[in-house]
Amino acid sequence: MRIGILTAGGDCPGLNAVIRSIVHRGIAEHNDEIIGFEDGFKGLLEGRYRPLDLNSVSGILARGGTILGSARLERARLREAADNAGQLCATYAIDALIPIGGEGTLTAARMLSDAGMPVVGVPKTIDNDISATDRTFGFDTAVTVATEAIDRLKTTAESHQRVMVVEVMGRHTGWIALESGMAGGAHGIVVPERPFDPADICAMVEERFARGKKFAVVCAAEGAHPAQGAMTYGHGEIDPYGHERFIGIGNRLAAELEKRLGKEARPVILGHVQRGGVPTAYDRVLATRFGWHAVEATHKGAFGHMTALRGTAIEMVALKDAISELKHVPPDRMDEAESVF
Amino acid sequence: MRIGILTAGGDCPGLNAVIRSIVHRGIAEHNDEIIGFEDGFKGLLEGRYRPLDLNSVSGILARGGTILGSARLERARLREAADNAGQLCATYAIDALIPIGGEGTLTAARMLSDAGMPVVGVPKTIDNDISATDRTFGFDTAVTVATEAIDRLKTTAESHQRVMVVEVMGRHTGWIALESGMAGGAHGIVVPERPFDPADICAMVEERFARGKKFAVVCAAEGAHPAQGAMTYGHGEIDPYGHERFIGIGNRLAAELEKRLGKEARPVILGHVQRGGVPTAYDRVLATRFGWHAVEATHKGAFGHMTALRGTAIEMVALKDAISELKHVPPDRMDEAESVF
Amino acid sequence: MRIGILTAGGDCPGLNAVIRSIVHRGIAEHNDEIIGFEDGFKGLLEGRYRPLDLNSVSGILARGGTILGSARLERARLREAADNAGQLCATYAIDALIPIGGEGTLTAARMLSDAGMPVVGVPKTIDNDISATDRTFGFDTAVTVATEAIDRLKTTAESHQRVMVVEVMGRHTGWIALESGMAGGAHGIVVPERPFDPADICAMVEERFARGKKFAVVCAAEGAHPAQGAMTYGHGEIDPYGHERFIGIGNRLAAELEKRLGKEARPVILGHVQRGGVPTAYDRVLATRFGWHAVEATHKGAFGHMTALRGTAIEMVALKDAISELKHVPPDRMDEAESVF
Amino acid sequence: MRIGILTAGGDCPGLNAVIRSIVHRGIAEHNDEIIGFEDGFKGLLEGRYRPLDLNSVSGILARGGTILGSARLERARLREAADNAGQLCATYAIDALIPIGGEGTLTAARMLSDAGMPVVGVPKTIDNDISATDRTFGFDTAVTVATEAIDRLKTTAESHQRVMVVEVMGRHTGWIALESGMAGGAHGIVVPERPFDPADICAMVEERFARGKKFAVVCAAEGAHPAQGAMTYGHGEIDPYGHERFIGIGNRLAAELEKRLGKEARPVILGHVQRGGVPTAYDRVLATRFGWHAVEATHKGAFGHMTALRGTAIEMVALKDAISELKHVPPDRMDEAESVF
Repeated sequence: MRIGILTAGGDCPGLNAVIRSIVHRGIAEHNDEIIGFEDGFKGLLEGRYRPLDLNSVSGILARGGTILGSARLERARLREAADNAGQLCATYAIDALIPIGGEGTLTAARMLSDAGMPVVGVPKTIDNDISATDRTFGFDTAVTVATEAIDRLKTTAESHQRVMVVEVMGRHTGWIALESGMAGGAHGIVVPERPFDPADICAMVEERFARGKKFAVVCAAEGAHPAQGAMTYGHGEIDPYGHERFIGIGNRLAAELEKRLGKEARPVILGHVQRGGVPTAYDRVLATRFGWHAVEATHKGAFGHMTALRGTAIEMVALKDAISELKHVPPDRMDEAESVF
Repeated sequence: MRIGILTAGGDCPGLNAVIRSIVHRGIAEHNDEIIGFEDGFKGLLEGRYRPLDLNSVSGILARGGTILGSARLERARLREAADNAGQLCATYAIDALIPIGGEGTLTAARMLSDAGMPVVGVPKTIDNDISATDRTFGFDTAVTVATEAIDRLKTTAESHQRVMVVEVMGRHTGWIALESGMAGGAHGIVVPERPFDPADICAMVEERFARGKKFAVVCAAEGAHPAQGAMTYGHGEIDPYGHERFIGIGNRLAAELEKRLGKEARPVILGHVQRGGVPTAYDRVLATRFGWHAVEATHKGAFGHMTALRGTAIEMVALKDAISELKHVPPDRMDEAESVF
Repeated sequence: MRIGILTAGGDCPGLNAVIRSIVHRGIAEHNDEIIGFEDGFKGLLEGRYRPLDLNSVSGILARGGTILGSARLERARLREAADNAGQLCATYAIDALIPIGGEGTLTAARMLSDAGMPVVGVPKTIDNDISATDRTFGFDTAVTVATEAIDRLKTTAESHQRVMVVEVMGRHTGWIALESGMAGGAHGIVVPERPFDPADICAMVEERFARGKKFAVVCAAEGAHPAQGAMTYGHGEIDPYGHERFIGIGNRLAAELEKRLGKEARPVILGHVQRGGVPTAYDRVLATRFGWHAVEATHKGAFGHMTALRGTAIEMVALKDAISELKHVPPDRMDEAESVF
Repeated sequence: MRIGILTAGGDCPGLNAVIRSIVHRGIAEHNDEIIGFEDGFKGLLEGRYRPLDLNSVSGILARGGTILGSARLERARLREAADNAGQLCATYAIDALIPIGGEGTLTAARMLSDAGMPVVGVPKTIDNDISATDRTFGFDTAVTVATEAIDRLKTTAESHQRVMVVEVMGRHTGWIALESGMAGGAHGIVVPERPFDPADICAMVEERFARGKKFAVVCAAEGAHPAQGAMTYGHGEIDPYGHERFIGIGNRLAAELEKRLGKEARPVILGHVQRGGVPTAYDRVLATRFGWHAVEATHKGAFGHMTALRGTAIEMVALKDAISELKHVPPDRMDEAESVF
């Protein structure tokens, strides 16, 4: 077979491991030809691609980013791709397309699949919010980076008797905050799924100081928000440049806590370090397995499906079932976390 | 309730996270009293224990080892414990015992349970070979340490055009070798489940050198062994001190490859670094969840069971079902790994 | 002898290693008694201290923060301490005081020394800006944390064809920016010692994009500032809360570059993670040696001096010479860095 | 100018950083042409080289190994190179040669220099045993890897009440053992410079157990050896394959301690992981500075010299002075280390 692959959407540690796995499995087992489109669906539309052989994926397993590049594409142009699905396959003489990406990419994949293109998807998101799979690669790396940061912040918070607010990624779901907060032993975790009351955090801090633990670390998903009316301070402002990105929940919550508690509180915004660099062993294994099974799926004709982790097995899930709704942090996972603060 | 806990068997990153989680959940939610027996079942028999409160588990989440100590106990003395199960509970006034350990410990736990003691087990092994649970804590840390070593060895192997044989833990199962070999991009993986032929490894190395990749890394589980008669060299010797531990598969395989290939081959035996030190974020989360659910199980009276990861959920599994047989690396997982060499 | 020690000023990885070293050397070699004052000079004035024996420093070598706590003290109260120097020594029956701290602490140490107290200082700053010593402990850890962040940011910058601005610590000197920028392979470094022109950075970015390297990373010391009039945008604002800390050079420079270049630019503010957590091997060795030599100095009566690294040797330097001026990044070090962008 | 570079001798983290720095500085500042000979002096003799431009050194700063390859060369062939020094320069049209390597390489460099070739050396050794420079790159990485291993081993030793013997690199000098032992908080350090008596180590272990610290870690340089007659056991054997490399001081000392103490003792041989992989920030900075100054030296005509770190400055040292004798661990550094056990 001749298989095209592309990576689309945000950067995610493990993308290169998927690419390498597809190339190795395809060539070694099936004598496939693999071509890689550049910059996501853009390359597909604009005819930018290159052949991928064993040498072209040598040494990329542990490298962050994606050797194929990534870019976002407007919906209209995706529509255009879907309308010409058959033509595109013919042009590139590909028997299958494997797009690797997050929700937007998988939605586009489904659109192409519905239009008749033989598509097998590979899900990708550091946010871990795709409901059809137990985990996505990239997530473990993001959690690891955030946990290491919390580990470091605890000693400095303790020496200075401070409250530290660590803002981690997660606009719509709180998975990174939940797991890094739990792993780092944060004393409070706030997530988009459960609007918080700053008064509860203050109570926790006061209780800690009262029993001699004169510091606290709060882990906040960037999409976390207070219950309506709960935050008396720092609500609604934008930054001096008019950019919303300069002023997130980390800064606002630190200011709020400092004001309410009369103790030093400092924000740390981890930002992009969570999505770059060397993937963890866990993510490399998961990504490699996803790539392997995507190749097998194309040879079995399981089009319109994507790879998914279910327990210890990799299964194929219909794209239409996979992307219907975000996987949110369920209440019982928050309960678990909160009782070990 | 008054709950006793103990850690038994080999060291494993995440043990302290379980202890901390039990103490936090028990005290915060249920107002339990927690006592910790020292040095595993020995402390239970010898009356060595201490109360555990929030302060006594402060700062241990990310620390390797176990604050309670661990020791192995002869079967006869375990028998003695089982025969006096009721008496022991009365003596310490405990309503439940939570032993945290590997196969031996869980077998002992079952023996105590059968003898009438209210027991909830928590499985622990860096080897990941307990069949009732998708994963055990400690495993991810071991794989991470081994993967980092393979990452480092690849550059030195390449600069010197050498074959490196990395021996990792795994006497009976090859999980650590499988996942660290896959994550590190080893070019060969040998495990106890599949007797290997050195000729196959030599063929792989020759093929690599032929296409200009003048180095190779082989990842070997310590329990891996050649197919009968396949290893012409280095079979059956013991070391000058009569200790078997000084001469494992790593040394033997490196010698064999060097002789067959006429190329430099070097063994690296990772040893105990795989089981010590700071647990990964993944292991801290899993260990914390296990502790949490073990406490809940004691309050629900789910005795004779142990915690297990199934997909993303923590479930309770009957001890008698949990320890019947080792979880071996299945053939399809080896197939996955081998096609990305 | 009976020796008092205290840690003052900002948190710094390696403080505990100094404390441990003093206790070990003092007790093992000289049969000294060591007491530790809590929260810096505050503990000295308020009589809060505890005896330190081998057990009390067990396991702290690799731990961030300081087991003695730290706090800043107003100058007036330091004056008070100096005025009562003799009385304080008598009260605690100490033959020597070893304060461990940065510029402020060493200035206070000198004040006490001038007032007749037998003082031996140990310099401490992650900023590496004390001129009398080649290096200070804590600096290598800060550089390592910042370098790891830059490593991660490069892959995400490359995948998204972005400019990333990493703001690292260094209000008055640019050592952390210089060395982490150099180690991480940043494409621009701005430091307080050399006012920069954003036009130069833009030219560098344009040149990179022109030759196909469609990303760039700029490392900025928090105290870096543009040459007068060079920054057309983002000058002089304060944040919506009136706090200066929410809006540093990282945010301002990213906004400026984005506007000038018409390319995505993102700021990452590393913040407090640089000063917490496990010290590097280098810092542990240096801190241990400083502690060792501080004890020797008290026994040799080398009061009014502090420890300093000179080449490979630890030497004693008069406090009055040590703290006269900050050690700035010299022009030739910046030249070195700039030619490998 | 047209400058040739080569890397020779054992692998060392930082080699690629030197190469990259030479290329950047040479091209950006002096408009030099740089060519890289492959596999050390072999490539020089055999005419294997390639031009190095900015793109060819892109992304190598943080990569272990050497992109130019390395190999050892017999003395006779080096003699041949020296005899044809002038001819070689003419053949390749090079105005200068920068060999990067350890003692053997620098001796060869001097031979070539004496024969009239314009040579500037860059010293390289993970062992840190070149006397003319305060430090060499690669050493900090090796110490860091060894320290992380000791950190991990301490928790497992403690949980199992064991003695662990960690064997680190250092055949002729004990620098890695000294600094990693000190940084890791080992309880004993043995180095080639000071023959040890196992009885002293046993006394240390007994003393620790007596005061409740029921574990110990000993860090041994591979070249460490007992005082004559001090080791009653494990002296002089070779391994079953007749290879000396399978049985080093780590194995022998662990066996000796186990026999004498009647306690479990386990060896861990770190081996090649110490010399591979990503260099630390410290090593990247030092390597980059060495490369920079080597280029400057060629343009100043400082031939017959090599780069050296002296305090915070990079200076040029005559090759004849640089390689006269190994830099050994001096007694006072061992005294420092021993008093903090």
